[in-house]
Amino acid sequence: MRPYDLIKKKRDGALLEPDELRFLVRGAADGSVADEQLAAFLMAVFFRGLDERHELPVWLEAMLRSGRVLDLSRIPGRKVDKHSTGGVGDKISLPLAPLVAVCGVRVPMISGRGLGHTGGTLDKLESIPGFRVDLPIARFEELVERLGLCLIGQTAEVAPADRKLYALRDATATVESVPLIASSILSKKLAEGIDALVLDVKVGRGAFMKTVPQARELARTMVELCRAVGRGCTALLTDMDAPLGRAVGNAVEVAESIEVLRGGGPPDVIELTLALGVEMLLLGQAARTADEARTKLRAALRDGSALRRFAELVDAQGGDARCIDDPSRLPRPKAIREVRAGASGFITALDAELVGLAAVELGAGRARKEDAVDPAAGLLLHRRSGDAVRAGDLVAELHGDTARLDAGEKRLRAAMRIGDAPPSRHPLVLERIT
Amino acid sequence: MRPYDLIKKKRDGALLEPDELRFLVRGAADGSVADEQLAAFLMAVFFRGLDERHELPVWLEAMLRSGRVLDLSRIPGRKVDKHSTGGVGDKISLPLAPLVAVCGVRVPMISGRGLGHTGGTLDKLESIPGFRVDLPIARFEELVERLGLCLIGQTAEVAPADRKLYALRDATATVESVPLIASSILSKKLAEGIDALVLDVKVGRGAFMKTVPQARELARTMVELCRAVGRGCTALLTDMDAPLGRAVGNAVEVAESIEVLRGGGPPDVIELTLALGVEMLLLGQAARTADEARTKLRAALRDGSALRRFAELVDAQGGDARCIDDPSRLPRPKAIREVRAGASGFITALDAELVGLAAVELGAGRARKEDAVDPAAGLLLHRRSGDAVRAGDLVAELHGDTARLDAGEKRLRAAMRIGDAPPSRHPLVLERIT
Repeated sequence: MRPYDLIKKKRDGALLEPDELRFLVRGAADGSVADEQLAAFLMAVFFRGLDERHELPVWLEAMLRSGRVLDLSRIPGRKVDKHSTGGVGDKISLPLAPLVAVCGVRVPMISGRGLGHTGGTLDKLESIPGFRVDLPIARFEELVERLGLCLIGQTAEVAPADRKLYALRDATATVESVPLIASSILSKKLAEGIDALVLDVKVGRGAFMKTVPQARELARTMVELCRAVGRGCTALLTDMDAPLGRAVGNAVEVAESIEVLRGGGPPDVIELTLALGVEMLLLGQAARTADEARTKLRAALRDGSALRRFAELVDAQGGDARCIDDPSRLPRPKAIREVRAGASGFITALDAELVGLAAVELGAGRARKEDAVDPAAGLLLHRRSGDAVRAGDLVAELHGDTARLDAGEKRLRAAMRIGDAPPSRHPLVLERIT
Repeated sequence: MRPYDLIKKKRDGALLEPDELRFLVRGAADGSVADEQLAAFLMAVFFRGLDERHELPVWLEAMLRSGRVLDLSRIPGRKVDKHSTGGVGDKISLPLAPLVAVCGVRVPMISGRGLGHTGGTLDKLESIPGFRVDLPIARFEELVERLGLCLIGQTAEVAPADRKLYALRDATATVESVPLIASSILSKKLAEGIDALVLDVKVGRGAFMKTVPQARELARTMVELCRAVGRGCTALLTDMDAPLGRAVGNAVEVAESIEVLRGGGPPDVIELTLALGVEMLLLGQAARTADEARTKLRAALRDGSALRRFAELVDAQGGDARCIDDPSRLPRPKAIREVRAGASGFITALDAELVGLAAVELGAGRARKEDAVDPAAGLLLHRRSGDAVRAGDLVAELHGDTARLDAGEKRLRAAMRIGDAPPSRHPLVLERIT
């Protein structure tokens, strides 16, 4: 089998045979197919796609099996994870995982880091002093069994073909392809040994998918692909025009997550945590109806059990669990700057992408993969889209090094528009695809 | 400037700016753009093309200037070359170059080697004992001035960007793109310092372009592109369903070329040599009309001056010029096998691609770039398409190592069909594009 012939076949719109797809994925994982050939194939896929019935399930299985696939079958109970396509202020995994675990679903969660304007769960968790996301697989399995959850980073053993292909896509402008996105996400997530997956597909200015049709296509592809490989999947399309919650950054988002686990927090963060939790409980067979699921989830927030589970997790992963009772122990910024409204009226827009870039300017994110993040950097929004403001009102505070505050403020001011009338409201959950 | 952005721009169908195109070509020549990024860009060009007005001339100029560009302006007279897109039995450069030089046009010819089923001028010339195709540029210029012609191989100094991009295209199934083919051919040819170029665009079973519309599109693109960069160009679309002439190989084609220069040879080889010669004389301002050109060319064949010029060239390039008077001094095969007709009737097809592959099996060509060729290997067709045969008639003789004869015979027999009625005749020159 020659890579040349397979590239040509895809280029010309023909279907590749299962062994041809496996040959390419194996070649990506072990280096036996040259980078330039993989890149040309990926660009051909960008134009020609991968057939959802005949190619994509085989491609996904090959990616998934290119490395270690966890077998959690000896741990009793259903294992369900959640994946978000990436947003701004999206800390949902932090309150969601312990909440769902307390309700009886196991959550073996392998997460990612922030890139571009979006944050990453691992960066947020690491802002808790001592928290380790690089646990050995044996410890990961132990915590999934004992606590019902564990949150770690991707290891080199999991889906090496995706690691290679993702790096190539990132260099060759072949990221924006629905079959490539779907197979990349699912190859990593399904290698966790889960029974089912809940997808939070973000739509809007701060999301990768800018329009509902694009997001719907990706969600539908992933739901069907999960089904094709024998896993349950439900996707929610959720709004990402404005940031989620009031906190954007690392330690600030941990603090906001703790608020939610205490039964407080911003309404949109609570709403989305519950909406995704309902789907996880249904797929995890921990509830028969959405109402029953919602009731269980609310009880676990109210009685403090989800908060306690989070504290146990932090402790088990090496973090300072005292932060949970006293969030002032989380990293504190070197400087804080207050940003005040320049005019009176209503906040008509708070562009999630620009707010995310403001947080990156402050040090909360990374411009390049190899950059380090500042755990204390980020911002808190005191006013949000739709709120009334008067000139001089405090609208946000910026956290970070003094030298970075000007750049952060510039981006944040660019993100915000103040007008005469309140903007129309979108629902947070736009569609449910199952 | 980031390669990523330029790949994305082309992928999405936008026009690249001149400095962006130059950046990519420079990156190919000096290695500053990664192979995988160039490959993805080439695949995007396969799908999106290069705009003939705004992109392709800039791309070509950048390729052309990526290495050494010969300046022959101190040599008096017009310099005109011929390029063939590759065929089987296509030895036309050998009689054509000295013939045109004798008629007053300078022919600085940088040629290629055979690949796949097609032969290469350099391999044919090297079958003349001692003939060197790796002359220094100074010697090349000296012979163009003194003899009016010189035939050498591409050096590392000429169009290094094309060398890099061609190798990538060959590995990534991005060869078959009209703008990439056109710019690749012209970047090498125009770097010779020529005023004009005659293109022999082959069409048919033994050609790269299988149909007239494909060939016409390539010819038209190259003619317009030459004009855009200030060079004259005429293209002939010529038939390549069946091999050209009776000889296919290396030494056998040199011998057939000598026959033509002696005023004999197969009618199709004579016809095409004259047709291309007429275009070269017109572009080289050595004749005002096609009739005048044809008269001059015929005279130079008849009076032996073209043959003498070829002998001088062979001598000047280190070859044994005695081969010209006595072709039996050319390499002789270890074995010859006669192939006889298995039925009576008419030869209705003699598939050029399969005949070319028969010659490769015999050792005349190379399956991989690094293979060596056998100068004595090849075949002679005693009967050709349209000829009547009786069962048992000699139709061909195969030249090569004994061990290779079976494979060669198998291919040759697959190439030939014998039927009841003669096939309809195509003209050799199908179209002229100017």
